[in-house]
Amino acid sequence: MSNPKAYDEFLEYAKSLRALSEIAANLSWDQEVMMPPAGGTARAEQMAVLAAVAHEKQTDPAYGDQLSELIDMPLDLLAKRNVELAKRDHDRATKVPARLASEIARITSHANTVWAQARSDDDFSAFAPTLETIIALKREEADCIRVDDQSRYAALLNDFEPGMRLDVLQPLLEGLRPRLAALREAIAGSAHRPSSLSGDFDTQAQMTLAREIADVLNYDWNAGRLDLSVHPFSTGMSGDVRITTRLDPANPLDCLYSTIHEIGHALYEQGISSQEAFMPVGHHVSMGVHESQSRLWENQIGRSQAFCSWLQTHFASAFPDSGLKDPTALYRIVNRVETGFIRTEADEVHYNLHILLRFELERELIAGELDVGDLEAEWNRRFERDFGIAVPKASQGVLQDIHWSAGLFGYFPTYALGNIYAAQLMDAMIGEIGPIDDDIANGRTKAVLDWLRSNIHEKGSRMAPDALIESCVGAPVSSEPLLNYLEQKFAALYEL
Amino acid sequence: MSNPKAYDEFLEYAKSLRALSEIAANLSWDQEVMMPPAGGTARAEQMAVLAAVAHEKQTDPAYGDQLSELIDMPLDLLAKRNVELAKRDHDRATKVPARLASEIARITSHANTVWAQARSDDDFSAFAPTLETIIALKREEADCIRVDDQSRYAALLNDFEPGMRLDVLQPLLEGLRPRLAALREAIAGSAHRPSSLSGDFDTQAQMTLAREIADVLNYDWNAGRLDLSVHPFSTGMSGDVRITTRLDPANPLDCLYSTIHEIGHALYEQGISSQEAFMPVGHHVSMGVHESQSRLWENQIGRSQAFCSWLQTHFASAFPDSGLKDPTALYRIVNRVETGFIRTEADEVHYNLHILLRFELERELIAGELDVGDLEAEWNRRFERDFGIAVPKASQGVLQDIHWSAGLFGYFPTYALGNIYAAQLMDAMIGEIGPIDDDIANGRTKAVLDWLRSNIHEKGSRMAPDALIESCVGAPVSSEPLLNYLEQKFAALYEL
Repeated sequence: MSNPKAYDEFLEYAKSLRALSEIAANLSWDQEVMMPPAGGTARAEQMAVLAAVAHEKQTDPAYGDQLSELIDMPLDLLAKRNVELAKRDHDRATKVPARLASEIARITSHANTVWAQARSDDDFSAFAPTLETIIALKREEADCIRVDDQSRYAALLNDFEPGMRLDVLQPLLEGLRPRLAALREAIAGSAHRPSSLSGDFDTQAQMTLAREIADVLNYDWNAGRLDLSVHPFSTGMSGDVRITTRLDPANPLDCLYSTIHEIGHALYEQGISSQEAFMPVGHHVSMGVHESQSRLWENQIGRSQAFCSWLQTHFASAFPDSGLKDPTALYRIVNRVETGFIRTEADEVHYNLHILLRFELERELIAGELDVGDLEAEWNRRFERDFGIAVPKASQGVLQDIHWSAGLFGYFPTYALGNIYAAQLMDAMIGEIGPIDDDIANGRTKAVLDWLRSNIHEKGSRMAPDALIESCVGAPVSSEPLLNYLEQKFAALYEL
Repeated sequence: MSNPKAYDEFLEYAKSLRALSEIAANLSWDQEVMMPPAGGTARAEQMAVLAAVAHEKQTDPAYGDQLSELIDMPLDLLAKRNVELAKRDHDRATKVPARLASEIARITSHANTVWAQARSDDDFSAFAPTLETIIALKREEADCIRVDDQSRYAALLNDFEPGMRLDVLQPLLEGLRPRLAALREAIAGSAHRPSSLSGDFDTQAQMTLAREIADVLNYDWNAGRLDLSVHPFSTGMSGDVRITTRLDPANPLDCLYSTIHEIGHALYEQGISSQEAFMPVGHHVSMGVHESQSRLWENQIGRSQAFCSWLQTHFASAFPDSGLKDPTALYRIVNRVETGFIRTEADEVHYNLHILLRFELERELIAGELDVGDLEAEWNRRFERDFGIAVPKASQGVLQDIHWSAGLFGYFPTYALGNIYAAQLMDAMIGEIGPIDDDIANGRTKAVLDWLRSNIHEKGSRMAPDALIESCVGAPVSSEPLLNYLEQKFAALYEL
């Protein structure tokens, strides 16, 4: 069937909206990676102007009318989905009054500085009043966007994981806790203690090895680049997907595994076809699915015995003095389990326990069941409950993450969802393409990428996230594959 | 006096226009310096969307009404000038129909590829039809914007040199020809032949030396950065002014003097105060004045005996095998006069003759007195007339410059104006601050920058370009100082 002319006009408009968001992404990348310090004031103004322009275009009533008409017209499947997705975003934007949107933008921009200072001073009370304002505004925003009997938290969650219901997500994530806690305990009781790396690792050699890893994972340099930033991230889509990493002379694994993680994100975005890169369907479907791609490459592949065997050879030639001789030494080191305070440094066993803590605290904050005044004490109490150690200072506790200062409530659970999806996808992939260890150990990862390309990347936002996962794995979303994977892997490693 | 509230609203609006143009500049920088190859398609879309948004805001009738009201209100001097400049730009933009503006944008974007291909094939006829279209459209545009009995060419010229009249500019530039030609002849007849550099110059050492030069010229790294690009350029303003250079192992002077040239541009922009960086007055006043800053640092300072004595020491330690021992060897090399085909490689004696050729040809093209079909033959005939050598191929002749393919008619003369202004400014500066050679020879250039800061940079667009120069030098614009400077310098160098 051929779509009406109004559809083509809509696509042109959607294209311009996408272009504006890509410009904002590029300016943010520039700010983190390239911009000289004194450029900050002008950049803030540029971002504000761009956001206002984008918001005006996104909420234009004429665009809304066009979408309302198109949604009832006969369209082919792809066109229908494009219109639905565009209408979802338009409705989301129009439901929030301009006054509220701009207040949230202003406070979260300011809050970043307040939070960074409070963290550096280990003083939660300096950040608390700002956080209180943010939460009040986010509750107000949630009231604008929630539908039917949806909770405020669920409404915010859906910005990151569209369609995910809280009565599905909560038992799914809470269900991780008993078996993760048991695994944690068992490992703590194990006599086995893998060593860690020590020494000084040339940063240029780290970068060279990071690039070799990017090569072996089929990162497309023609459509990307690798730079340095304080916190590694990936950004952009389709033909221009950039990643960053960081360098610590004492810890080359931070650089290498950050690179693998960001490459996982980047491969997803590079897998969006250029023909669809300007359509609403040509977009990652959710943060959970995005994270599944980074975590699959970082953990299921990157921390596998097979990949470590490939990496060990290259690591040993990059760092001849590292003394890594035993072929499984690196495998043991990158899978070392240790209780720590910091989420971003956590091993696979502890990581989701960090998420669960934030998930329950932010649900209570948004529900109004927990006061910001009690947040630090509650964080510390529950952290000790879950991890068995006492938080010594706010920078290692409640102030460690940037998310809340940026107004990102409902974002944390998508990290755990990503881990869950990744394990399901891995099982399904092996079921289809057979064992991959020999290939991976020899630096051949193309079959894995091809499977992800056709099952996830090229699908863009054609389906809802849960439907997409189910279409790949032939079963509903479940934490069983993740828990089984972790128990088997670490039982062997720690001789449990 | 206090300005009306409408003025503050106007300033906010002007600020958003400036922010949009800065975003476009940053995206262009990224495209030349950072963007991966496959990013081109999306970037073209982003630039087009941004240009459309900026054009819409610039030509908004409500903004025009606001400007018309403000222009008749009592305002302080700075405010009055801000409104005048904003109205000039608004009027310029509204006079050109959107259809024509978009046709020019489309053809010039496309023409870049056609021109680059034609140049690489040395085939002017492949570019001629496109150039013909561009000229027709620029003539049409000139008809929209010219005032009273202004010629089309003068109208286009004023985009780059506001207020400059053709009956002033033409005799000024044509007046250069006889004495430059005589100087050229005299040098050609001189027995003196300075050597040139030969060898292989480590590119990393070139970059290190380029950074040392930036340091010594007081380039503010806190508000800038230095990268590589195919063609050196500078971009940005106030707190974020970036420069690029390029590396040729056989010719380190290309890197070093390109860097000095771009630093000259950058110092001007870094000298715009951050308080005014979002106001219409907080903007470089003309391309001629901009070029005066780059040329003053590149030639009057950078090619002086004093600076060459500083540079020779640093050059010798960066390139110990270069064999540069005699303290005046570098001075002679960087001032070597040689007839060549390429404008951007020309010495100070030949440079303005290259400009004069383009100035007369483009005037005739826009006036309709010269057909594109005859352009290559006319270029070659007049080049041989002026330079005494025959153009061997189009890439060394009529196809060498990008300007016409970009629709930049009226731009070339600003290069010569820059040289003229620079010589006048240098004389005035020395008259005020006294001899500077000892300072320069010891790497102390701050007094020169300070003089330029208070006389040019901090003035922004407060005055028209010619009034600005006259206010600094106490005399009207004149080519005498430039010609005197060249004749004295090269008579001594070539023992004429």
